[in-house]
Amino acid sequence: MSHAGSFDAITVIRAKRDGHALAKDQIDWVLDAYVRGEVAEEQMAALAMAILLNGMDRREIADWTAAMIASGERMDFSSLPLPTTDKHSTGGVGDKITLPLAPLVAACGAAVPQLSGRGLGHSGGTLDKLESIPGWRARLSAGEMLGVLREAGAVICAAGEGLAPADRKLYALRDVTGTVESIPLIASSIMSKKIAEGTGALVLDVKVGSGAFMKTYEDARELAGTMVGLGTDHGVRTVALLTEMSVPLGLTAGNALEVRESVEVLAGGGPADVVELTLALAREMLDAAGLPDADPAAALADGSAMDRWRRMIRAQGGDPDAPLPTARERHTVPAPASGVLTALDAYAVGVAAWRLGAGRARKEDPVQAAAGVELHAKPGDRVAAGAPLLTLHTDTPERFEAALAALGTEGAIAVAPEGSAEAAAWAGPRPTVLGRIA
Amino acid sequence: MSHAGSFDAITVIRAKRDGHALAKDQIDWVLDAYVRGEVAEEQMAALAMAILLNGMDRREIADWTAAMIASGERMDFSSLPLPTTDKHSTGGVGDKITLPLAPLVAACGAAVPQLSGRGLGHSGGTLDKLESIPGWRARLSAGEMLGVLREAGAVICAAGEGLAPADRKLYALRDVTGTVESIPLIASSIMSKKIAEGTGALVLDVKVGSGAFMKTYEDARELAGTMVGLGTDHGVRTVALLTEMSVPLGLTAGNALEVRESVEVLAGGGPADVVELTLALAREMLDAAGLPDADPAAALADGSAMDRWRRMIRAQGGDPDAPLPTARERHTVPAPASGVLTALDAYAVGVAAWRLGAGRARKEDPVQAAAGVELHAKPGDRVAAGAPLLTLHTDTPERFEAALAALGTEGAIAVAPEGSAEAAAWAGPRPTVLGRIA
Repeated sequence: MSHAGSFDAITVIRAKRDGHALAKDQIDWVLDAYVRGEVAEEQMAALAMAILLNGMDRREIADWTAAMIASGERMDFSSLPLPTTDKHSTGGVGDKITLPLAPLVAACGAAVPQLSGRGLGHSGGTLDKLESIPGWRARLSAGEMLGVLREAGAVICAAGEGLAPADRKLYALRDVTGTVESIPLIASSIMSKKIAEGTGALVLDVKVGSGAFMKTYEDARELAGTMVGLGTDHGVRTVALLTEMSVPLGLTAGNALEVRESVEVLAGGGPADVVELTLALAREMLDAAGLPDADPAAALADGSAMDRWRRMIRAQGGDPDAPLPTARERHTVPAPASGVLTALDAYAVGVAAWRLGAGRARKEDPVQAAAGVELHAKPGDRVAAGAPLLTLHTDTPERFEAALAALGTEGAIAVAPEGSAEAAAWAGPRPTVLGRIA
Repeated sequence: MSHAGSFDAITVIRAKRDGHALAKDQIDWVLDAYVRGEVAEEQMAALAMAILLNGMDRREIADWTAAMIASGERMDFSSLPLPTTDKHSTGGVGDKITLPLAPLVAACGAAVPQLSGRGLGHSGGTLDKLESIPGWRARLSAGEMLGVLREAGAVICAAGEGLAPADRKLYALRDVTGTVESIPLIASSIMSKKIAEGTGALVLDVKVGSGAFMKTYEDARELAGTMVGLGTDHGVRTVALLTEMSVPLGLTAGNALEVRESVEVLAGGGPADVVELTLALAREMLDAAGLPDADPAAALADGSAMDRWRRMIRAQGGDPDAPLPTARERHTVPAPASGVLTALDAYAVGVAAWRLGAGRARKEDPVQAAAGVELHAKPGDRVAAGAPLLTLHTDTPERFEAALAALGTEGAIAVAPEGSAEAAAWAGPRPTVLGRIA
């Protein structure tokens, strides 16, 4: 009673703490007051922990997301003559899919206004990868972003400060208070930015496995379902694919290393799993944009996707023909035995790439453009004892030891004798797309 | 992994968030780092919420309490020739018991080094009450405190800044983050101060009912058991009484009003429930101090307790003979009907006294010495329609309306016809002491 009225932080915190649903006006008030500094960081931290432990129902998550959108500006691409469509990945190891995907979808007739992020921890960031291209700029004004979209049909850039400022502030707080791992908070954080971005259609790539944020299919499905519901409720045609992330995607994890692999895909080559996932996501994005008859495989084969890539990179100041940086030092990890590779853990590879310099421990840290891990085999492949399994790249060789320690974690790398049950379990192709939620 | 080692705030928060017990070294580290400012307020807020929702086991609570004691200085009364014994109440409405109790126990041969607090919200504070005596000082140096103890055998004063600073900081944080209502955090907060205070014996008065912090007997018993365990583990002979707090204690709630009633008890009069509880707690304190044969009833009757009171008040700068302040304005609340009073809710009376000016909404607020509520009947008493039931006292008559609103809450005051079942339920004396835990 020392805090009269229903609009004070303690009343809102207590309500969630005691397992009640928060009313829409409580949610609107607490997020607005938080951005204004009237609700203190320690109060929002207590509320975030109560939300993490006691959950939010679908209506609360929708209201929370709407309040985060309302905290900032909304973008509008309705002046474009094309339907807009976008993709968001929850993050994985070797997940360079945005790079070939955005120009590919543009080549098929949709506009792709992609706001991306930077890497933190073991999973890489799209902007970090593209910054390994000499001259390329991540920060664009709204006018520049529209200009690149008109020129190339796709743009990949950093979100402006004005987009969902409540999410920006809350995300930084969650990062230091152990309140990241909450499906309502993750879903509302992702979707508030994507809805404010103004895309008409959205495909979510929700990763499942050791290298992903969601370790189990059940958690990933819950997150995907929550996000699809939020998008749909806000008039964005939203679909989610649940995709495999217990093994790295493709054969590279790093910044310049992944750009090189992405260009291979745009040239019609590249690892099978990267091509498969790029095409699956492109089909979903085009379908959601009202272009179900587009043929992304043809756009890869005929060079039109590559053409869009070159236009997009150039329009953002980059030189698509400039050589990519290479690492000063390399270290080869040999296969420990002969047989069939049965484990190459995505999390261990992600941590190794991060420790080599590809990722950052704190938001302020720089990244090395050339650092990372190159894979010479994937689970299911035959390997010979002593033959190269991985190549580690870094400019700072003192990092090899920490990277090797991550790869030396029990079960991170395993080889089984040919003909064994373990080896047989890896025979034949493995699906990359595990499920779909619409 | 961006926060290496087990001694970082996020690892500790996550452990409790995920339902694990915190290790002793984690607890020691997090409280020490919090006092040093290395663990941020928002991190401790998230941890406090995780503790509130996921609990702590007995070992964790003991370690948490020990770390809070270790954060500051400990007092030592071993130079006194007398055994030390103290009392702590979890707070109620009209709970002036410390005032007659401390000098009474001193009169029976034990030393009472009582560190007390101020009121916040609807329950009053011992220091606020005593400050209505002209000249009386709550803040004493350690040397002054020992001097008063030697002179009067009892001292009631504010805790110094150096005692359990981790608790001081955490208590202020919990107050604004909705994390007050946690038995592990309440128990460790109370006991860290009492153990650091250096008393040899301790009696806990754990209140149960609408006017208390613990609304149910079960919650009160859990809190009492936790605190008795903590005291015992730290070598303090500790006993808890569970006592009635659904009706105000005595016939007054306020500051000067309660001093007046306390002096009546010391003079051998006073309301029966106040006398009963004072004697019950005195017997427990003396027994725990190794003086089981002391006779507190005799010390009330022969004036020796009153003598100690006068010495104690004088030694702290007060004039025991000075007239107490009286309120500028009074308002009488009549009985709503004739019959037997069956409800006079402690919480409603406490809120009314607080709103009249006896308590504070924020720590910085002043209190009115003369404000409060005077009761002319207690449940079980016969009342006549229109006859005075309560007198409200304040210096600021604009407060009457808010106080009357609290008393007008449904069920706060009830009168049943004589001979009715409701009236019969209140026939005969009601116990003040509901249970004992040792």
